[in-house]
Amino acid sequence: MYGEFELIEKIAARFTRPDGVTLGIGDDAAVLDPGRFDMVTTDTMVEGVHFDRRWSSAFDIGWKLIAVNLSDVAAMGGGPGVFFMNLTIPRDTEESFLDELLDGIHAACSELVPDSFDVGVGGGDVTATDGPLVLSVTMMGECSPAGPVLRSGAVPGDRVAVLGHLGLAAAGLALLRGDLEGAVPEDYPALLQAHRRPIARVHEGAMLGLYGVPSALMDVSDGLAQDLQKILRASGAGAWVEAHSLPRHPELERLEREHGADVLSYILSGGDDYELVITVPPARMPKLWELARRYEWDVYDLGEVRGAEEGLRLIGPDGSPLALDVRGWDHFAGAAG
Amino acid sequence: MYGEFELIEKIAARFTRPDGVTLGIGDDAAVLDPGRFDMVTTDTMVEGVHFDRRWSSAFDIGWKLIAVNLSDVAAMGGGPGVFFMNLTIPRDTEESFLDELLDGIHAACSELVPDSFDVGVGGGDVTATDGPLVLSVTMMGECSPAGPVLRSGAVPGDRVAVLGHLGLAAAGLALLRGDLEGAVPEDYPALLQAHRRPIARVHEGAMLGLYGVPSALMDVSDGLAQDLQKILRASGAGAWVEAHSLPRHPELERLEREHGADVLSYILSGGDDYELVITVPPARMPKLWELARRYEWDVYDLGEVRGAEEGLRLIGPDGSPLALDVRGWDHFAGAAG
Repeated sequence: MYGEFELIEKIAARFTRPDGVTLGIGDDAAVLDPGRFDMVTTDTMVEGVHFDRRWSSAFDIGWKLIAVNLSDVAAMGGGPGVFFMNLTIPRDTEESFLDELLDGIHAACSELVPDSFDVGVGGGDVTATDGPLVLSVTMMGECSPAGPVLRSGAVPGDRVAVLGHLGLAAAGLALLRGDLEGAVPEDYPALLQAHRRPIARVHEGAMLGLYGVPSALMDVSDGLAQDLQKILRASGAGAWVEAHSLPRHPELERLEREHGADVLSYILSGGDDYELVITVPPARMPKLWELARRYEWDVYDLGEVRGAEEGLRLIGPDGSPLALDVRGWDHFAGAAG
Repeated sequence: MYGEFELIEKIAARFTRPDGVTLGIGDDAAVLDPGRFDMVTTDTMVEGVHFDRRWSSAFDIGWKLIAVNLSDVAAMGGGPGVFFMNLTIPRDTEESFLDELLDGIHAACSELVPDSFDVGVGGGDVTATDGPLVLSVTMMGECSPAGPVLRSGAVPGDRVAVLGHLGLAAAGLALLRGDLEGAVPEDYPALLQAHRRPIARVHEGAMLGLYGVPSALMDVSDGLAQDLQKILRASGAGAWVEAHSLPRHPELERLEREHGADVLSYILSGGDDYELVITVPPARMPKLWELARRYEWDVYDLGEVRGAEEGLRLIGPDGSPLALDVRGWDHFAGAAG
């Protein structure tokens, strides 16, 4: 395994200092251009809780570490910039594992981030551990000139929409764990991909923020039901979601048909998809559709924000409420709902 | 043990949102006042590597987590502000342990920080683990109007000085571990205190930065020899340090006298003291002494910055070089030098 300083040198050599950073790796602290970054988010990934080396490669783990933090910046309608890494590494870790981890981190920075942003390392800390791998990233970004998009802005009458398919990552994990008897994981590449290398909606988040489209915005990390509940609680509102409007990915449909998977449960309660859920005032819906057409976004209109007294309801095609499972991923319990 | 959201609520209730933070805990990211913070540092503490629950209470661990990060801001000549916490917590952790950990974090924020700064939580992430406790803090601060004080500014002819005593924390840890046969840890309260609740030099760092006193500045976390080497390497310089100018704390002298401890080794190579080592142009020395007298700082003039070709030398009272042990704390090896 690399020594502490050797690993820091590898990181410093691998990542160029991003725009907006005056002083990067190498001193007691990093120095930023004043006035550049006004947003901070941080996420930790723990081996055995958030990832499993049996199902994810070192590259996948590095990729996901960046993706989840990029997703939080997108979920504020902002653009990402410099990040800081805390790598807590088991003593017996192979150097090749660390090389691949850095490859995955590097690839996510370039492949998930449009050219208009420059994402790179400003500093961090590497430490050894006798326990599992623990990886934290603290990412800074820039709010849109229109300001950050909070969870608390949803108003009755707004539409509820999602950009992209949900439930894929949870189904992918279920396949890898062998939860679905007889199903061959490799037959479902999109589901595995969603679990291993989620796509953060960096461009979508920044554009939604720039054009002031959403009244509220979140990324779906704990499951649609639980995350939409957070928006509704912060906004003091309820919502009706139409069950038949929830997008069903072809691989999910096949999994249901061939292996009896409870696809609706994955869609509502599966975490780790990192798609964006938004509420949009009716007057801003045309702008959303214009952006969706221009940039080929996958947008699904799911329902309507209602009064708080109505709670979060799942509505069937005939207008009658269905039972809604509001469980989601609880990182402390470590079990998907 | 607390649930994830319960613990976050406890943290949010316990810490007020600090100055310069528009939006704290509760959304996907925090939002900062633009132009406020231009410095970032981060440090991780791992159970079994950086602390041991046999020697440190939960309060001590929380205190130290903040102290080490405050110290890095001081080591840039800046002032501290908002921080972000990543708490990775073993599943069987008692609620009372977490309460005391937060108590220690809170106490360090108020007791180590002068009124002119406001240090508090802007956000973070809490996760469970099957392994040891892993704690990261990413702290933001403000550079002095005179700019950050780097490691790279030392010039031959500058004086080398230290603010405070060194070697105490390492001696305290040696006592707790039972490395010193027959020595009773409780007989050395200052050494135990230095290990358990180090003092970050927040005011000193900020004042040194404000008055532009140092040409280079660092905090001593890995041992004087190793950390001074970092300044010299960054500056392309060497230094002579006078062995007889190194301050010797009364408890260290007693430990040497009564138990034959190798006190010079603690002073040169012991880590975790978080005192400040500085190089100062001769013309700025009067300002240093003025500040030291005004604020009752413990300043020791140790020697002189020399040319790179002279390396780092320890000089005896007769001017002859002594053997210098340049080992220090290597967090990967996990052994004090």
